[in-house]
Amino acid sequence: MSWLDDIKWDRDGLVPVIAQEAASGDVLMLAWMNREALALTAARGQAVYWSRSRRRLWHKGEESGHFQQVHDIRLDCDADVVLLKVTQLGHDPGIACHTGRHSCFYSALNGDRWQAVEPVLQDPATIYRR
Amino acid sequence: MSWLDDIKWDRDGLVPVIAQEAASGDVLMLAWMNREALALTAARGQAVYWSRSRRRLWHKGEESGHFQQVHDIRLDCDADVVLLKVTQLGHDPGIACHTGRHSCFYSALNGDRWQAVEPVLQDPATIYRR
Repeated sequence: MSWLDDIKWDRDGLVPVIAQEAASGDVLMLAWMNREALALTAARGQAVYWSRSRRRLWHKGEESGHFQQVHDIRLDCDADVVLLKVTQLGHDPGIACHTGRHSCFYSALNGDRWQAVEPVLQDPATIYRR
Repeated sequence: MSWLDDIKWDRDGLVPVIAQEAASGDVLMLAWMNREALALTAARGQAVYWSRSRRRLWHKGEESGHFQQVHDIRLDCDADVVLLKVTQLGHDPGIACHTGRHSCFYSALNGDRWQAVEPVLQDPATIYRR
């Protein structure tokens, strides 16, 4: 599909993908997609990433039930970053982070150290039961 | 500084950095920083990136006057992505993109093609005069 050819994949065949919560505007996470993951994301309307650590496709929510419904797929001016507008499913408020937090960006620079400033909404031990 | 050591720099010594407009929540751009760029960003309170194409530090706004005032610096759970909450200075509404648009993420996937869906706020020819 030609729209996939428009993307400047990096030397590993990946592109960074930002997931932003559509309703709140909160930036939830950044993960990576290869060509197959982005094609699947567009076809299913749910986010499918490429896990660099596990080296396999990762249908977000496959273990937690916290799927991401995709409303909008954006590409930046250099065609090397993708932005998804999503609804984070499975919990209210949505939990995107494997630590049980809303967003992965819960550490804030405070002086010369990082400090966790967002609450854990659900114990991860109760999320990853499957 | 130890907070810089907490970051998992990639094999090129870089980290991807998302700039989000503090007031609106809009995701403006993604660029990259090396250790020096992030240290300068924190010290100055203005975004300083590493330009991969020009291979030099890039004080955002140095040519356009469109500086980014940094209110908050966040790190994600894997310590390999940074999120800045910024005010995009120099124009109202803010212009983060070199095309003269508010955000770099102005191309939306529409069926099987990318379509520009955000207006040009200022002609780039009049932005890059210096």
